Amino acid sequence: MVKKLSQAELTALLPDLPAWTLDAARDRITRSFRFKDFSQAFGFMSRVALLAEKADHHPEWSNVWNRVDILLTTHDAGGLSMRDIEMAKAIDAL
Amino acid sequence: MVKKLSQAELTALLPDLPAWTLDAARDRITRSFRFKDFSQAFGFMSRVALLAEKADHHPEWSNVWNRVDILLTTHDAGGLSMRDIEMAKAIDAL
Repeated sequence: MVKKLSQAELTALLPDLPAWTLDAARDRITRSFRFKDFSQAFGFMSRVALLAEKADHHPEWSNVWNRVDILLTTHDAGGLSMRDIEMAKAIDAL
Repeated sequence: MVKKLSQAELTALLPDLPAWTLDAARDRITRSFRFKDFSQAFGFMSRVALLAEKADHHPEWSNVWNRVDILLTTHDAGGLSMRDIEMAKAIDAL
């Protein structure tokens, strides 16, 4: 079972993810990316897909041409877990 | 310039796309797909991405694990054009 992060844990961890937005309900983080064109955007998505499959932790995401919006949460935990923090860091590192 | 399809043209063309939903404002068509898992879903998305890049006509789409939602419209035409009909048929053929 994946543990939901406490408010104190989030407060400690989120400064490492300055590009991500914590939503008001505090159960998910989101980040928008913009690229030169669709080819670049989908290339990025392919790399995120490989990360997600390897971690068995998948984003909720959408794409419109050069834009990719990613939402991370852990349904099994009922909110944010370390799996989301780790995935966000891995995405940032791409 | 891409021409927006008339109501009469849509009425003639849409029966060939029974799996797609025309929205109330009649300016877009949508279809949801479900797969066995994320790997199957993203494999499908990769094939759609290649079609889209080849046609230079890109979907607005989202993915949550095994689900892919696709929306087609032609912003340059201010609604549905033949490019959407052709892309929908190409996606159906995958």
